[in-house]
Amino acid sequence: MFEHQRHKPPQELARPRELVVVCAPLRSNVNLSRIARAASCCGLQRILCTGHAKLDRRIARDGADTLQIETHRTLPPVLIELRQQGYRLVGLEQTTDSTNLHEYQFERKTALVIGNERTGLTPDLLKHLDDVVEIPVWGMPFSYNVATATTMTLYEYCRQFPKG
Amino acid sequence: MFEHQRHKPPQELARPRELVVVCAPLRSNVNLSRIARAASCCGLQRILCTGHAKLDRRIARDGADTLQIETHRTLPPVLIELRQQGYRLVGLEQTTDSTNLHEYQFERKTALVIGNERTGLTPDLLKHLDDVVEIPVWGMPFSYNVATATTMTLYEYCRQFPKG
Repeated sequence: MFEHQRHKPPQELARPRELVVVCAPLRSNVNLSRIARAASCCGLQRILCTGHAKLDRRIARDGADTLQIETHRTLPPVLIELRQQGYRLVGLEQTTDSTNLHEYQFERKTALVIGNERTGLTPDLLKHLDDVVEIPVWGMPFSYNVATATTMTLYEYCRQFPKG
Repeated sequence: MFEHQRHKPPQELARPRELVVVCAPLRSNVNLSRIARAASCCGLQRILCTGHAKLDRRIARDGADTLQIETHRTLPPVLIELRQQGYRLVGLEQTTDSTNLHEYQFERKTALVIGNERTGLTPDLLKHLDDVVEIPVWGMPFSYNVATATTMTLYEYCRQFPKG
Protein backbone atom coordinates (compact mmCIF):
# COMPACT_ATOMS: atom_id res chain seq x y z
CA MET A 1 0.00 0.00 0.00
CA PHE A 2 0.95 3.66 -0.10
CA GLU A 3 2.94 5.22 2.71
CA HIS A 4 3.82 8.89 2.77
CA GLN A 5 7.57 9.43 2.35
CA ARG A 6 8.80 12.70 3.67
CA HIS A 7 12.09 14.05 2.39
CA LYS A 8 12.40 11.51 -0.37
CA PRO A 9 15.76 12.09 -2.13
CA PRO A 10 15.45 14.30 -5.22
CA GLN A 11 16.13 13.17 -8.78
CA GLU A 12 19.70 13.37 -10.05
CA LEU A 13 20.55 15.52 -13.04
CA ALA A 14 23.19 14.06 -15.36
CA ARG A 15 24.23 17.62 -16.20
CA PRO A 16 23.17 21.09 -15.09
CA ARG A 17 19.91 22.41 -16.48
CA GLU A 18 20.41 24.84 -19.33
CA LEU A 19 16.96 26.38 -18.99
CA VAL A 20 16.80 29.93 -17.68
CA VAL A 21 13.67 31.94 -16.95
CA VAL A 22 13.56 35.56 -18.07
CA CYS A 23 10.81 37.73 -16.59
CA ALA A 24 9.48 41.02 -17.90
CA PRO A 25 8.64 43.36 -15.01
CA LEU A 26 5.90 41.55 -13.10
CA ARG A 27 3.22 43.36 -11.12
CA SER A 28 3.40 40.85 -8.32
CA ASN A 29 6.40 39.67 -6.38
CA VAL A 30 4.15 36.86 -5.17
CA ASN A 31 4.02 35.51 -8.71
CA LEU A 32 7.77 35.96 -9.10
CA SER A 33 8.36 34.16 -5.81
CA ARG A 34 6.10 31.27 -6.82
CA ILE A 35 8.00 30.97 -10.09
CA ALA A 36 11.29 30.98 -8.15
CA ARG A 37 10.25 28.12 -5.87
CA ALA A 38 9.03 26.02 -8.80
CA ALA A 39 12.16 26.79 -10.83
CA SER A 40 14.44 25.86 -7.96
CA CYS A 41 12.56 22.58 -7.45
CA CYS A 42 13.03 21.88 -11.16
CA GLY A 43 16.79 22.30 -10.77
CA LEU A 44 17.15 25.60 -12.60
CA GLN A 45 20.06 27.79 -11.63
CA ARG A 46 19.21 31.26 -12.92
CA ILE A 47 16.30 33.66 -13.17
CA LEU A 48 16.73 36.95 -14.99
CA CYS A 49 14.33 39.68 -13.89
CA THR A 50 13.57 43.27 -14.65
CA GLY A 51 12.07 46.04 -12.59
CA HIS A 52 11.64 45.94 -8.83
CA ALA A 53 12.02 42.21 -8.55
CA LYS A 54 12.06 41.13 -4.95
CA LEU A 55 11.46 37.63 -3.68
CA ASP A 56 9.15 36.87 -0.78
CA ARG A 57 11.17 34.23 1.05
CA ARG A 58 8.08 32.72 2.68
CA ILE A 59 6.91 31.81 -0.83
CA ALA A 60 10.15 31.29 -2.74
CA ARG A 61 11.61 29.25 0.13
CA ASP A 62 15.08 27.93 -0.69
CA GLY A 63 14.63 29.20 -4.23
CA ALA A 64 15.63 32.60 -2.85
CA ASP A 65 19.06 31.19 -1.94
CA THR A 66 19.76 28.48 -4.50
CA LEU A 67 18.86 30.48 -7.60
CA GLN A 68 21.07 33.11 -9.09
CA ILE A 69 18.65 36.05 -9.39
CA GLU A 70 19.85 38.67 -11.85
CA THR A 71 18.08 41.99 -12.13
CA HIS A 72 18.30 44.05 -15.29
CA ARG A 73 16.96 47.45 -16.18
CA THR A 74 15.53 46.38 -19.51
CA LEU A 75 15.21 43.07 -21.36
CA PRO A 76 16.09 43.53 -25.04
CA PRO A 77 19.88 43.72 -24.50
CA VAL A 78 19.60 40.67 -22.24
CA LEU A 79 17.80 38.72 -24.95
CA ILE A 80 20.41 39.69 -27.52
CA GLU A 81 23.17 38.51 -25.21
CA LEU A 82 21.40 35.23 -24.43
CA ARG A 83 21.08 34.50 -28.13
CA GLN A 84 24.79 35.16 -28.58
CA GLN A 85 25.38 32.64 -25.79
CA GLY A 86 23.45 30.03 -27.76
CA TYR A 87 20.10 30.12 -25.99
CA ARG A 88 16.92 29.61 -27.97
CA LEU A 89 14.54 32.42 -26.99
CA VAL A 90 11.07 31.03 -26.31
CA GLY A 91 8.19 33.22 -25.22
CA LEU A 92 5.10 32.10 -23.31
CA GLU A 93 2.10 33.91 -24.75
CA GLN A 94 -0.95 33.63 -26.95
CA THR A 95 0.22 35.05 -30.28
CA THR A 96 -0.07 34.52 -33.99
CA ASP A 97 2.25 31.66 -35.02
CA SER A 98 2.59 30.36 -31.48
CA THR A 99 3.03 26.61 -30.95
CA ASN A 100 0.89 24.50 -28.65
CA LEU A 101 3.09 23.59 -25.67
CA HIS A 102 1.84 19.99 -25.97
CA GLU A 103 3.57 19.72 -29.35
CA TYR A 104 6.65 21.85 -28.78
CA GLN A 105 10.08 20.21 -28.70
CA PHE A 106 12.35 22.28 -26.51
CA GLU A 107 16.02 22.72 -27.12
CA ARG A 108 18.01 22.04 -23.98
CA LYS A 109 19.56 25.48 -23.97
CA THR A 110 16.45 27.62 -23.74
CA ALA A 111 15.60 31.01 -22.29
CA LEU A 112 11.91 31.00 -21.38
CA VAL A 113 10.59 34.56 -21.58
CA ILE A 114 7.59 35.46 -19.41
CA GLY A 115 5.42 38.55 -19.82
CA ASN A 116 3.73 40.88 -17.41
CA GLU A 117 0.40 39.75 -15.86
CA ARG A 118 -1.59 42.43 -17.67
CA THR A 119 0.29 43.34 -20.80
CA GLY A 120 1.86 39.96 -21.58
CA LEU A 121 4.83 39.92 -23.92
CA THR A 122 5.06 43.29 -25.62
CA PRO A 123 6.12 43.81 -29.27
CA ASP A 124 9.61 45.04 -28.27
CA LEU A 125 10.19 41.63 -26.65
CA LEU A 126 8.28 39.46 -29.13
CA LYS A 127 10.45 40.64 -31.99
CA HIS A 128 13.53 39.08 -30.37
CA LEU A 129 12.02 35.61 -29.90
CA ASP A 130 12.71 32.44 -31.88
CA ASP A 131 9.49 30.71 -30.87
CA VAL A 132 6.39 31.36 -28.82
CA VAL A 133 4.56 28.59 -27.00
CA GLU A 134 1.02 28.80 -25.73
CA ILE A 135 -0.91 26.53 -23.41
CA PRO A 136 -4.36 25.36 -24.44
CA VAL A 137 -7.22 26.81 -22.40
CA TRP A 138 -10.64 25.18 -22.24
CA GLY A 139 -12.59 27.28 -19.78
CA MET A 140 -13.08 30.61 -18.04
CA PRO A 141 -11.33 32.96 -17.38
CA PHE A 142 -9.55 31.76 -20.55
CA SER A 143 -6.11 32.70 -19.24
CA TYR A 144 -3.81 31.11 -16.72
CA ASN A 145 -2.17 33.09 -13.97
CA VAL A 146 1.43 33.87 -15.01
CA ALA A 147 2.98 31.65 -12.34
CA THR A 148 0.57 28.83 -13.21
CA ALA A 149 1.45 29.05 -16.92
CA THR A 150 5.17 29.18 -16.12
CA THR A 151 4.78 26.15 -13.86
CA MET A 152 3.16 24.16 -16.67
CA THR A 153 5.97 25.13 -19.03
CA LEU A 154 8.67 24.18 -16.53
CA TYR A 155 6.92 20.83 -16.13
CA GLU A 156 6.86 20.22 -19.88
CA TYR A 157 10.53 21.12 -20.28
CA CYS A 158 11.54 18.81 -17.40
CA ARG A 159 9.37 16.03 -18.83
CA GLN A 160 11.40 16.29 -22.03
CA PHE A 161 14.74 16.47 -20.20
CA PRO A 162 14.35 14.47 -16.98
CA LYS A 163 18.13 14.07 -16.71
CA GLY A 164 18.96 17.70 -17.46
CA MET B 1 6.22 37.43 -36.72
CA PHE B 2 4.52 37.07 -33.37
CA GLU B 3 1.64 39.32 -32.45
CA HIS B 4 -0.08 39.15 -29.10
CA GLN B 5 -3.65 37.85 -29.41
CA ARG B 6 -5.88 38.83 -26.57
CA HIS B 7 -9.02 36.81 -25.95
CA LYS B 8 -8.07 34.07 -28.35
CA PRO B 9 -10.97 31.57 -28.48
CA PRO B 10 -10.49 28.61 -26.12
CA GLN B 11 -10.05 24.99 -27.19
CA GLU B 12 -13.17 22.92 -27.76
CA LEU B 13 -13.79 19.80 -25.72
CA ALA B 14 -15.41 16.94 -27.63
CA ARG B 15 -17.02 15.84 -24.37
CA PRO B 16 -17.10 17.16 -20.82
CA ARG B 17 -14.01 16.58 -18.72
CA GLU B 18 -14.40 13.68 -16.33
CA LEU B 19 -11.58 14.80 -14.05
CA VAL B 20 -12.56 16.07 -10.62
CA VAL B 21 -10.25 17.51 -7.99
CA VAL B 22 -10.73 16.43 -4.39
CA CYS B 23 -8.98 18.49 -1.72
CA ALA B 24 -8.20 17.52 1.84
CA PRO B 25 -8.62 20.51 4.18
CA LEU B 26 -6.04 23.01 2.95
CA ARG B 27 -4.39 25.56 5.22
CA SER B 28 -4.61 28.27 2.62
CA ASN B 29 -7.63 29.46 0.68
CA VAL B 30 -5.12 31.18 -1.60
CA ASN B 31 -3.86 27.77 -2.70
CA LEU B 32 -7.43 26.50 -3.10
CA SER B 33 -8.32 29.57 -5.16
CA ARG B 34 -5.27 29.15 -7.39
CA ILE B 35 -6.24 25.52 -7.96
CA ALA B 36 -9.81 26.63 -8.79
CA ARG B 37 -8.68 29.11 -11.45
CA ALA B 38 -6.35 26.57 -13.07
CA ALA B 39 -9.01 23.85 -12.94
CA SER B 40 -11.61 26.12 -14.51
CA CYS B 41 -9.18 27.08 -17.30
CA CYS B 42 -8.61 23.36 -17.90
CA GLY B 43 -12.35 22.86 -18.37
CA LEU B 44 -13.04 20.96 -15.17
CA GLN B 45 -16.52 21.22 -13.73
CA ARG B 46 -16.24 20.12 -10.11
CA ILE B 47 -14.00 20.55 -7.11
CA LEU B 48 -14.76 18.66 -3.93
CA CYS B 49 -13.40 20.27 -0.78
CA THR B 50 -13.32 19.69 2.93
CA GLY B 51 -13.06 22.03 5.88
CA HIS B 52 -13.52 25.77 5.70
CA ALA B 53 -13.06 25.97 1.95
CA LYS B 54 -13.67 29.47 0.74
CA LEU B 55 -12.55 30.88 -2.58
CA ASP B 56 -10.88 34.25 -2.95
CA ARG B 57 -12.59 35.56 -6.06
CA ARG B 58 -9.68 37.89 -6.90
CA ILE B 59 -7.55 34.78 -7.35
CA ALA B 60 -10.04 32.14 -8.51
CA ARG B 61 -11.61 34.61 -10.98
CA ASP B 62 -14.38 32.99 -13.01
CA GLY B 63 -13.45 29.66 -11.49
CA ALA B 64 -15.50 30.75 -8.49
CA ASP B 65 -18.62 30.82 -10.69
CA THR B 66 -18.05 28.20 -13.35
CA LEU B 67 -16.94 25.40 -11.05
CA GLN B 68 -19.30 23.40 -8.93
CA ILE B 69 -17.64 23.65 -5.51
CA GLU B 70 -18.84 20.96 -3.11
CA THR B 71 -17.88 21.09 0.54
CA HIS B 72 -17.84 17.95 2.62
CA ARG B 73 -17.19 17.38 6.30
CA THR B 74 -14.82 14.49 5.74
CA LEU B 75 -13.29 12.79 2.68
CA PRO B 76 -13.39 8.99 3.13
CA PRO B 77 -17.15 8.65 2.41
CA VAL B 78 -16.68 10.93 -0.61
CA LEU B 79 -13.89 8.73 -1.95
CA ILE B 80 -15.99 5.60 -1.49
CA GLU B 81 -18.87 7.20 -3.38
CA LEU B 82 -16.60 8.41 -6.19
CA ARG B 83 -15.27 4.89 -6.65
CA GLN B 84 -18.84 3.57 -6.85
CA GLN B 85 -19.44 6.16 -9.58
CA GLY B 86 -16.54 4.71 -11.57
CA TYR B 87 -13.81 7.22 -10.79
CA ARG B 88 -10.23 6.06 -10.47
CA LEU B 89 -8.89 7.55 -7.24
CA VAL B 90 -5.43 9.03 -7.82
CA GLY B 91 -3.49 10.77 -5.08
CA LEU B 92 -0.75 13.33 -5.56
CA GLU B 93 1.99 12.64 -3.04
CA GLN B 94 5.46 11.23 -2.49
CA THR B 95 4.79 7.70 -1.22
CA THR B 96 6.03 4.18 -1.48
CA ASP B 97 4.76 2.64 -4.74
CA SER B 98 3.93 6.02 -6.27
CA THR B 99 4.27 6.44 -10.04
CA ASN B 100 6.26 9.18 -11.73
CA LEU B 101 3.71 11.58 -13.25
CA HIS B 102 5.80 11.60 -16.45
CA GLU B 103 5.00 7.92 -16.94
CA TYR B 104 1.48 7.73 -15.61
CA GLN B 105 -1.39 7.01 -18.01
CA PHE B 106 -4.54 8.59 -16.62
CA GLU B 107 -7.96 7.14 -16.99
CA ARG B 108 -10.41 9.73 -18.27
CA LYS B 109 -12.67 9.35 -15.28
CA THR B 110 -10.29 10.30 -12.49
CA ALA B 111 -10.63 11.87 -9.07
CA LEU B 112 -7.34 13.63 -8.27
CA VAL B 113 -6.89 13.72 -4.51
CA ILE B 114 -4.77 16.53 -3.06
CA GLY B 115 -3.36 16.62 0.47
CA ASN B 116 -2.87 19.36 2.99
CA GLU B 117 0.19 21.63 2.60
CA ARG B 118 1.85 20.34 5.75
CA THR B 119 0.58 16.84 6.36
CA GLY B 120 0.08 15.72 2.75
CA LEU B 121 -2.17 12.76 2.14
CA THR B 122 -2.79 11.03 5.45
CA PRO B 123 -3.09 7.23 5.88
CA ASP B 124 -6.89 7.39 6.23
CA LEU B 125 -7.02 8.84 2.70
CA LEU B 126 -4.12 6.90 1.15
CA LYS B 127 -5.80 3.60 1.95
CA HIS B 128 -8.70 4.46 -0.37
CA LEU B 129 -6.58 5.30 -3.42
CA ASP B 130 -6.03 3.22 -6.55
CA ASP B 131 -2.82 4.98 -7.55
CA VAL B 132 -0.51 7.69 -6.30
CA VAL B 133 1.45 9.92 -8.67
CA GLU B 134 4.44 11.97 -7.72
CA ILE B 135 6.27 14.70 -9.58
CA PRO B 136 10.05 14.50 -9.87
CA VAL B 137 11.94 17.16 -7.91
CA TRP B 138 15.50 18.12 -8.71
CA GLY B 139 16.28 20.97 -6.34
CA MET B 140 15.56 22.76 -3.08
CA PRO B 141 13.21 22.96 -1.25
CA PHE B 142 12.55 19.47 -2.64
CA SER B 143 8.79 19.93 -2.60
CA TYR B 144 6.40 21.86 -4.79
CA ASN B 145 3.76 24.13 -3.38
CA VAL B 146 0.41 22.27 -3.38
CA ALA B 147 -1.15 24.50 -6.03
CA THR B 148 2.01 24.24 -8.18
CA ALA B 149 1.96 20.43 -7.99
CA THR B 150 -1.77 20.34 -8.75
CA THR B 151 -1.20 22.65 -11.73
CA MET B 152 1.44 20.30 -13.16
CA THR B 153 -0.90 17.35 -12.74
CA LEU B 154 -3.81 19.15 -14.41
CA TYR B 155 -1.46 19.98 -17.28
CA GLU B 156 -0.39 16.34 -17.69
CA TYR B 157 -3.98 15.09 -17.63
CA CYS B 158 -5.05 17.66 -20.25
CA ARG B 159 -2.02 16.82 -22.38
CA GLN B 160 -3.26 13.22 -22.43
CA PHE B 161 -6.87 14.22 -23.13
CA PRO B 162 -6.78 17.45 -25.12
CA LYS B 163 -10.30 16.81 -26.38
CA GLY B 164 -11.78 15.87 -23.00
